[in-house]
Amino acid sequence: MRTVDLIEKKADGLELSEEEIRFLISGFVAGDIPDYQMSAFMMAVRLNGMTPGETAALTMIMMHSGDIADLSMLKGVKLDKHSTGGVGDTTTLVVAPLVAACGGTVAKMSGRGLGHTGGTLDKLESVPGLKVEQTMEDFIRIVEENGVAVIGQSGNLVPADKMMYALRDVTATVCSIPLIASSIMSKKLASGADAIVLDVKTGSGAFMRTLEESFELAKTMVSIGTLTGRKVRAVVTDMNQPLGMAVGNALELKEAIELLSGQIPETDPLYEVCMLLGVQMLMLAGLAENETDARSSLKAAIDSGKGLARLKRMVELQGGDSSYIDPVKINELCQVKQKIEVRSTKAGYVSAMEAEKIGNAAQMLGAGREKKGDPVDPAVGLVMKVRCGDHVSMNQPLCTLYVNDDRRLNEVIALILEAIDIEDTNTGRKPMVYGIVTDRDL
Amino acid sequence: MRTVDLIEKKADGLELSEEEIRFLISGFVAGDIPDYQMSAFMMAVRLNGMTPGETAALTMIMMHSGDIADLSMLKGVKLDKHSTGGVGDTTTLVVAPLVAACGGTVAKMSGRGLGHTGGTLDKLESVPGLKVEQTMEDFIRIVEENGVAVIGQSGNLVPADKMMYALRDVTATVCSIPLIASSIMSKKLASGADAIVLDVKTGSGAFMRTLEESFELAKTMVSIGTLTGRKVRAVVTDMNQPLGMAVGNALELKEAIELLSGQIPETDPLYEVCMLLGVQMLMLAGLAENETDARSSLKAAIDSGKGLARLKRMVELQGGDSSYIDPVKINELCQVKQKIEVRSTKAGYVSAMEAEKIGNAAQMLGAGREKKGDPVDPAVGLVMKVRCGDHVSMNQPLCTLYVNDDRRLNEVIALILEAIDIEDTNTGRKPMVYGIVTDRDL
Repeated sequence: MRTVDLIEKKADGLELSEEEIRFLISGFVAGDIPDYQMSAFMMAVRLNGMTPGETAALTMIMMHSGDIADLSMLKGVKLDKHSTGGVGDTTTLVVAPLVAACGGTVAKMSGRGLGHTGGTLDKLESVPGLKVEQTMEDFIRIVEENGVAVIGQSGNLVPADKMMYALRDVTATVCSIPLIASSIMSKKLASGADAIVLDVKTGSGAFMRTLEESFELAKTMVSIGTLTGRKVRAVVTDMNQPLGMAVGNALELKEAIELLSGQIPETDPLYEVCMLLGVQMLMLAGLAENETDARSSLKAAIDSGKGLARLKRMVELQGGDSSYIDPVKINELCQVKQKIEVRSTKAGYVSAMEAEKIGNAAQMLGAGREKKGDPVDPAVGLVMKVRCGDHVSMNQPLCTLYVNDDRRLNEVIALILEAIDIEDTNTGRKPMVYGIVTDRDL
Repeated sequence: MRTVDLIEKKADGLELSEEEIRFLISGFVAGDIPDYQMSAFMMAVRLNGMTPGETAALTMIMMHSGDIADLSMLKGVKLDKHSTGGVGDTTTLVVAPLVAACGGTVAKMSGRGLGHTGGTLDKLESVPGLKVEQTMEDFIRIVEENGVAVIGQSGNLVPADKMMYALRDVTATVCSIPLIASSIMSKKLASGADAIVLDVKTGSGAFMRTLEESFELAKTMVSIGTLTGRKVRAVVTDMNQPLGMAVGNALELKEAIELLSGQIPETDPLYEVCMLLGVQMLMLAGLAENETDARSSLKAAIDSGKGLARLKRMVELQGGDSSYIDPVKINELCQVKQKIEVRSTKAGYVSAMEAEKIGNAAQMLGAGREKKGDPVDPAVGLVMKVRCGDHVSMNQPLCTLYVNDDRRLNEVIALILEAIDIEDTNTGRKPMVYGIVTDRDL
């Protein structure tokens, strides 16, 4: 087999066999296939796509390129969730403890990655003492006791993905759906989950900007799950504005605690998406007969405080000071030098937001990383005061900035104002959920 | 400007500006843009194409990546010809001296390259003493005196092409028409010609297998010429069987000498294509009013022996023993250990040939290179005895092999028999010329 012939085959729009994909990926990971051949191959994949069979084979081969977490010691269906990434997406910190409180087993390994705000790991690390690096033994022990733990991806999980992603990032092949799907799914499969609920974000703040692409990504990932013997469902949810009101690490943790404490109404978008994800997880795990039952269980776990208790215990078991997992005490982690209101420069209706810009604004305040290894400031970020469809008057606060370092403040304020469209007529609220993709939709 | 954004732009099917293409190519040649980005870009070009403007800009930027031959000291229109490469294509050795004999100025720099048989340079080097490496001063002096010289491309001509080709070869981006066209044309332009006649081969032995692709390549190159202020015409000619009967270095030189000596009839395909190319060159140079006049001049140069005299003098001026430029003496350069007839295993009509396989057979006998730097044996090769449309009887010789090293003889014979299709019914002769592309066809 010659690498150039396999690139040619994909460039000609033909389907590669599993053996051919293995030759490429194993060769690349072993250093036998140079970057310039892999980048040409990935560009051919971006432009010609991959069949479901190719994508599933690619995923399995990537998954097997490194360590695979063995969660077989845990009883029951091992559940995981994954979001393709959005702004103000605090769902993991809500859903994982709630599902655990409903009897689920949530052994979640999270990637660190770049982004507008830190990921779930950064949000957890805003709690003093909490360690996201855990041995597999401790991880399993915590999940056994508490039903939930969220740790960082350990050691050598899917090295093929790290190598491929580094190359995709600089060769304009990030946006290929089969490459995105195999990247996400290889890590999820290597993390040992039996059942996975995926939240594919769509809109201005998401990786997938159009609904069509978002559903294609959702279907591709559900198809990979089906072809590799996992239970996978995907939901497509809105990211045309931040999901929660908070964008920042401790600020998002605070919003999660408030939700788990019953302080956020059912009509709230973050609440709605958390319920949606929780329902799918309980149903996939066979812990609920139908959607209505699942939803009741999740609501009961909020009302009883059992969900919050799981989060608190998880923080404790992961070495954190769990006294902060409290709707009052958490405010101490959100202390900043100054809070600044960004006010509307005109009256009207909020017609649209560019969530990515709002995320970038939080990042510029220090909530997220521009490059790997940058520090994040857990306390900073912003809290939105309006949503699409709201009426605002002149000078009404649009959001509150939580600021420690004010060097880029003017830039941040300008970005927020640019991100929020205010029109004379009300274009109404946006839907939060666009659809659910199951294996029956393939 | 960021490389990844330019790759993205091409992957999205958008047109790059001249400045953007310059950024990519200059950065690549300077070593600032790594191979893996250039290979992704070239794959995007293969799959999304380039506009005529992009292709012309790419060509000019590649041309200016290294030295440019200054032929301004030569009087008149500097003529060049180029063939995209075929089997048994001896046209340069015929046309260049003929056009010189008709008053043209043919200052031709040839690339060495790989191939079934050696290129024009290898054919010339079968003459003892002949040097294809010449200084620019000597090159110009020879052309001034004799109207024609054929030398190797010197020093640092189009380094961008060398670097890009090395990468294309291993990343399945060789077959991209804008990349082929810019590769050929950048070298032709850097070689200093004012007027170029291109011979685009089409068929089983050619780079372009279909007529459609061949015309597209022809048009692309003529368009580059027009957009860069050169006079360019292209002809599309057949390569479904070897052009001349000889395939090998000295053997092809011998066939050229025979043609220039008036020993090959006008109905012969090699004769026909040589005339076609010569006519276009004379017309581009303004040395003939119309096709009829051009053809008469060329025929007169054969009949008078003036064409052969130019070849003889060129060989002498380039340091070769010109006594071999003689239809009898040349046989001494074709002396081999054994000549073997490959005979037909059935009776019928020759319906098709796979010219590439016939070329490969000659290469296996030592006439061409498998990899750069391999030696070639000037004397070996083969001489065809039949053409498509001919009737053959059982055991009739199909070709004569000229063999010094018989280690792969059985393989060679099998390949020849495989390459020649013999059917019960006569499918007739194939056309030699499919069309001429001028700037009026764009």
